[in-house]
Amino acid sequence: MSEIKRLLKPVPPGGVIGIIGGGQLGRMLAMAAARLGLQAAIYNDGKNAPAFQVTPLQLVAAYDERNMLTGFAEICDVITFEFENLPSESIAYLASLRPLHPGQRALEATQDRLTEKTFLRSLGLKTAPFVAVGSREEAAKAFAEIGGLTIDGLAILKTRRLGYDGKGQAKVTSAGETARAFDSFKAAPAILEGFVDFAFEASVVAARSSDGKFAAYDPPENIHEHHILRRSIVPGRLTRAQADEAKAIARKIAEALDYVGVLAVELFVAKDGALTVNEIAPRVHNSGHWTIEACACSQFEQHIRAVAGWPLGDPTRHADAVMENIIGAEADAWESLARSGAIHLYGKREARPGRKMGHVTRLKPLTK
Amino acid sequence: MSEIKRLLKPVPPGGVIGIIGGGQLGRMLAMAAARLGLQAAIYNDGKNAPAFQVTPLQLVAAYDERNMLTGFAEICDVITFEFENLPSESIAYLASLRPLHPGQRALEATQDRLTEKTFLRSLGLKTAPFVAVGSREEAAKAFAEIGGLTIDGLAILKTRRLGYDGKGQAKVTSAGETARAFDSFKAAPAILEGFVDFAFEASVVAARSSDGKFAAYDPPENIHEHHILRRSIVPGRLTRAQADEAKAIARKIAEALDYVGVLAVELFVAKDGALTVNEIAPRVHNSGHWTIEACACSQFEQHIRAVAGWPLGDPTRHADAVMENIIGAEADAWESLARSGAIHLYGKREARPGRKMGHVTRLKPLTK
Repeated sequence: MSEIKRLLKPVPPGGVIGIIGGGQLGRMLAMAAARLGLQAAIYNDGKNAPAFQVTPLQLVAAYDERNMLTGFAEICDVITFEFENLPSESIAYLASLRPLHPGQRALEATQDRLTEKTFLRSLGLKTAPFVAVGSREEAAKAFAEIGGLTIDGLAILKTRRLGYDGKGQAKVTSAGETARAFDSFKAAPAILEGFVDFAFEASVVAARSSDGKFAAYDPPENIHEHHILRRSIVPGRLTRAQADEAKAIARKIAEALDYVGVLAVELFVAKDGALTVNEIAPRVHNSGHWTIEACACSQFEQHIRAVAGWPLGDPTRHADAVMENIIGAEADAWESLARSGAIHLYGKREARPGRKMGHVTRLKPLTK
Repeated sequence: MSEIKRLLKPVPPGGVIGIIGGGQLGRMLAMAAARLGLQAAIYNDGKNAPAFQVTPLQLVAAYDERNMLTGFAEICDVITFEFENLPSESIAYLASLRPLHPGQRALEATQDRLTEKTFLRSLGLKTAPFVAVGSREEAAKAFAEIGGLTIDGLAILKTRRLGYDGKGQAKVTSAGETARAFDSFKAAPAILEGFVDFAFEASVVAARSSDGKFAAYDPPENIHEHHILRRSIVPGRLTRAQADEAKAIARKIAEALDYVGVLAVELFVAKDGALTVNEIAPRVHNSGHWTIEACACSQFEQHIRAVAGWPLGDPTRHADAVMENIIGAEADAWESLARSGAIHLYGKREARPGRKMGHVTRLKPLTK
């Protein structure tokens, strides 16, 4: 494998940003690239990808198909991702062909919950208590260790890899339940986390450029339902001090990873005000969608700017905003949703339960 | 020719909006359609159209090629335009195949400066003094009639059709000059306009839906250089009363034309505060580009909403804005321009003098 490629100068207008993954995040990234006069090329492992509707440069192939990855890299000036769960061999291979952001280090640090939490602890950041679980026996033992530390003896078994929107997670209240949950995940390597007692959830979306500049958006309060983000509210219940602390946490993480691009850090805000890091998403994030309307430079444009070596945009918020996801059959009400605010629909043909079909952002005059 | 088609219900998400013209306006319209989960199909008379970079649905053909217009209409649910100077036979033909907005009436009223000014007068709106010029003799006579009415005996000969960005216009100060200018336009039918003495220029961008709802953006002050828009400033020097009057003018025009879509009305603001209508653009307009960042619903999304039969979006402005065009070789400074604000580049390969390559919008906190 040849050495990792670096971007020596910014991708000029007309250049091609390769985006791996053609879902709604890839779609909104592609649209942001177009604003900047850049072209987006989308690589997706199935046809009918939402992002295929917004660029003629598109490729359908499995994420580990060498020849197709090679061909894709050839038309791109730089490559990025809409999701972090690409096979690590493919990431390494692409990185040998073209500048790739965020880099392998960031993706490796966040693909595995055990690596991620260990990394966060190493930075002195607060996380939920956790123990690695590699076997049925360890599962039971882990509960004995963690259960006592948390509220009502509640803990959560999570697979180390490939979880999102609550998939690969199970709440457990006993050693036996923990062992059974481990079985139900087909003995995939997991961690057991203590349940964090929080007042509310929040997140911070931030960007770091290749020359080390940093820019963070105001952190929203996030409301989840059935493990899926329901709405993000900015400003939410965070105090100014908590907002500043959240941005500082994002900066610490971005710098430690020598990160280039947008990342999101999900947080728990305790009743006493303390911030606990839940997880890092090395990409644009659902809780940052409100930036499209409320900021001159959205999280999507910010990510494209960062990975293309452009100067970062201004993350200043000039309106209050509430972003609400449109999930599954809720999209049938698109006409009244369009009346109620700035609607975004992702071009998905089938409204399966739990599927994110779009979102609506509603702005109000700036209060703080 | 069969009857004109009407849109009986809104184009649902996934539907196709046909856009005639693939320049920057078509490009930004296509991107706005995508936000709403609609697909944009672009028809352009040359390849390398900026809008071709943002949708896979594209067709290259002359604007009067019947078979191609037919094929294009077949994939579209509704058809609209980025520019008003399509051959009128093509407009009528497309209107017989698919719902078409803005309709033939609006396009006909605005394609010809004589028809347009006569229409404006019929609404009781103030325009520059004007006389039709169809021959060399009429040119000289027209100057005798108009010259005395205006500042320093200054008048402007304009071809009745196909003018934009100062093309097909000549300042004249005598009957002889007027006749020579008429010759220089190859004896194309023209009008002679008296020069309006204004304090500054302004415009109002507004939308009307198929069910008669109306929404106007705050009118910007516009600065032109060499007949090309240099910048739009909102709020500019217009008073609240002038802004309201500008919106009322746009509404009167839109209603009289039974208009569906976004239109722009260019205005002169006299030293005594009176508003004179310069011209109507039956489309999204350069002086409305600031709405992308400063409003939750941009002029582009508003137009797509209107022509697709969707509810209009909220035109409320939540920041002050200055939009500056990037013209010709100015685009070489894209990196510093990107640092200075929200940059938009249109994907044009060649930076010819006077060519609009992009724009930058800079936001400030709302003052009024």
